[in-house]
Amino acid sequence: MGFGGRIPPLLDYFPCQPAAGLRGRRALHVAAMAAINSNFLKLKAGYLFPEIARRVQAYSAAHPDLAARIIRCGIGDVTEPLPPAAIAAMHAAVDEMATRDTFKGYGPEQGYEFLRQAIVDHQFAGLGIAADEVFISDGSKCDTGNILDIFGKGNVIAITDPVYPVYVDTNVMAGNTGDADANGTYQGLLYLPCNAANHFVADVPAQKADLIYLCFPNNPTGAVATRPQLEAWVKYAKANDAIILFDAAYEAFIQDPAIPHSIFEIEGARDCAIEFRSFSKNGGFTGTRCAYVIIPKSVTGSAEDGSRVPFHQLWSRRHSTKFNGASYPVQKAAAAIFSVEGQSQVSALIAHYMGNANLLREAAAAAGLPVFGGENAPYVWVGCPAGLSSWDMFDKMLGEAQVVITPGSGFGSAGEGYFRISAFNSRTNVEEVCRRLKALVE
Amino acid sequence: MGFGGRIPPLLDYFPCQPAAGLRGRRALHVAAMAAINSNFLKLKAGYLFPEIARRVQAYSAAHPDLAARIIRCGIGDVTEPLPPAAIAAMHAAVDEMATRDTFKGYGPEQGYEFLRQAIVDHQFAGLGIAADEVFISDGSKCDTGNILDIFGKGNVIAITDPVYPVYVDTNVMAGNTGDADANGTYQGLLYLPCNAANHFVADVPAQKADLIYLCFPNNPTGAVATRPQLEAWVKYAKANDAIILFDAAYEAFIQDPAIPHSIFEIEGARDCAIEFRSFSKNGGFTGTRCAYVIIPKSVTGSAEDGSRVPFHQLWSRRHSTKFNGASYPVQKAAAAIFSVEGQSQVSALIAHYMGNANLLREAAAAAGLPVFGGENAPYVWVGCPAGLSSWDMFDKMLGEAQVVITPGSGFGSAGEGYFRISAFNSRTNVEEVCRRLKALVE
Repeated sequence: MGFGGRIPPLLDYFPCQPAAGLRGRRALHVAAMAAINSNFLKLKAGYLFPEIARRVQAYSAAHPDLAARIIRCGIGDVTEPLPPAAIAAMHAAVDEMATRDTFKGYGPEQGYEFLRQAIVDHQFAGLGIAADEVFISDGSKCDTGNILDIFGKGNVIAITDPVYPVYVDTNVMAGNTGDADANGTYQGLLYLPCNAANHFVADVPAQKADLIYLCFPNNPTGAVATRPQLEAWVKYAKANDAIILFDAAYEAFIQDPAIPHSIFEIEGARDCAIEFRSFSKNGGFTGTRCAYVIIPKSVTGSAEDGSRVPFHQLWSRRHSTKFNGASYPVQKAAAAIFSVEGQSQVSALIAHYMGNANLLREAAAAAGLPVFGGENAPYVWVGCPAGLSSWDMFDKMLGEAQVVITPGSGFGSAGEGYFRISAFNSRTNVEEVCRRLKALVE
Repeated sequence: MGFGGRIPPLLDYFPCQPAAGLRGRRALHVAAMAAINSNFLKLKAGYLFPEIARRVQAYSAAHPDLAARIIRCGIGDVTEPLPPAAIAAMHAAVDEMATRDTFKGYGPEQGYEFLRQAIVDHQFAGLGIAADEVFISDGSKCDTGNILDIFGKGNVIAITDPVYPVYVDTNVMAGNTGDADANGTYQGLLYLPCNAANHFVADVPAQKADLIYLCFPNNPTGAVATRPQLEAWVKYAKANDAIILFDAAYEAFIQDPAIPHSIFEIEGARDCAIEFRSFSKNGGFTGTRCAYVIIPKSVTGSAEDGSRVPFHQLWSRRHSTKFNGASYPVQKAAAAIFSVEGQSQVSALIAHYMGNANLLREAAAAAGLPVFGGENAPYVWVGCPAGLSSWDMFDKMLGEAQVVITPGSGFGSAGEGYFRISAFNSRTNVEEVCRRLKALVE
């Protein structure tokens, strides 16, 4: 030990000179402690769903007699069990882990070939996607957050408003924004307003963006983009050398055959788009955890030296270095979703949830409220009664009907005056929610 | 749609002004495409293990007759099946996912209480760690990489040499280093040399560091730190307001009762240490995926405004935003490791691997090579025969004995002249490796 109990003076010397450019902050705080990522302090208090959980808990504590009556249509979590095909495959995979000859240790970080190939064959047939352009992970929330690791600083980042909060918060954490104003709008982001006038599908902006988050079918509004709308986005991205981050987690809910399921159905998207997919909502894997990202090798960005670098190669390196593959039994369960029985079981699940969505749409419309979404997505997006804010309506629904909804303003300032009802529930619960909604407005 | 097919000119205008301070790069490249994270380009070609896989594949292709003879003692992956207690628990949890009443959707992002509490009760009893200071994840590689998200820029980062490459590479990706020299040594990192003279336990440095990565039992050298050595590190960290990132993934292999298993056995560590643990090597979860991080609430860092902020709060926010919890059946399997049967089964696994380590130690010593580690760790660290570099020895072992080892230089320049043999194998394979090692040097 070269230390011998003597504490070296903190200010005297720095025999180790860190690389130039790394010492900016330290120049002001020579004897500082370990620095935290101060960008986290820009985040507005509480992620939306923890705040909802807090209010529900407070209400339950204050009204123990009504707590059991609460029906949760807030968080977008599935309620129905895993498809039997996934259950059987997972049991079989667990058995493989029990004997030496079939035991699986570390798998490929990018995912097993059996799953990558099944995804390409069943979800992207004819779209020119190769199995090695599919990266398996443990969830789309991780993927949509972690993807920023491979992007540099200084990109103009466009997000829709309202929006899934993870896109915004991860950019805040990464230092890609300034501070938020009182409405929770961050400096430095390019917000694309979505409203009743544009049917909650963002228009292509006049100015240049480098990175655009699009989510269709949309969370929270349930809106879908038509083929011409997606074509306009791909055209914009190619003209501006921009990248589209396309979140298609809800594609399985699309009922209209004219609506694209993947951005790669659009000519040219292989040059400018990255797509996120999940087993959470089609297979009900929210607690089982499996998702994937498609990064065509032809999607490139610019390095500081001006060279074009494929994002595929960067993500592959990130996956190898900061991830160790998704759980083997989980990957086997995910692959079973693509079996004949699996596909039939998923269809039944989707039909169940979309039946719920239809009932909720009808009930909200019958209550005289403006209704959007819910036709190709498990979310119904509803205008609040006149004079009520989103959180007013949340409190009213919780307090008077014991129904948990999601306040639209939690997804961005353009969501103010709306609320989201999730179709992820049992039929019994949904029918009860419809009755209570009717009673509430009468 | 406000686009109508007209492509806006790229250079003319920027009606959206991003936040001040974000436009540095863009000032030089007004019409640039999306910027990549150029720090990735500093990474030396290929992560160590892909390079090993490449050489093994090339050798197998060139010598198809010998390919079946190859024994892999390279990557640190377990070979024995999951403990029966984990298998049973996982089957039971899969069955829970099959019916509506017991189905689990999204779990708590930080992990289920049943697992957090079991960890505290069985691994940290009496050490003052609370269940809500445990964060469950899908792997230590993810955790040790992602932890940098909550640290700011400008920290002086100390790593041992040799070192687990993930610590270095994730700092490169995060922009915490300069370029690498020909030896793969990065500017801006404070390297703490480990060698035969200090028994591969780094001395506390004379200069100040803000963040220190320590791994005991060590990967790759198999070294362990004594209590006085860890006390010196905690004293140093407290004196320098530094944070110790303590990787204890291999703690279950410690045989010597005097060697601490956790940094939190050291007085004061609750103020300055974060500990990483895994089910990969004790329970054999490398393909099943479960790990955890301990962040005491009393560990703080400094914000840009000079305030002290608990890292616990930052990691909790990160987990809520960029992670969605580990797979439920996997968490149930992990908890079963702490059952009476589970503990007994893990003990048998550890005894098996440590028996292997002992045979490998003896064989390497009998071959006249300097031997370290392998007494409290599943890795044996061996000096190469005189005149051979680490990769020379790799090629010799592969070419002449069909045994895959890990070249020490792959872990840093101070690892040159050494190689790592992993004890993760069947007894039959290990005995065969010992015979071939004997034949090789005769």
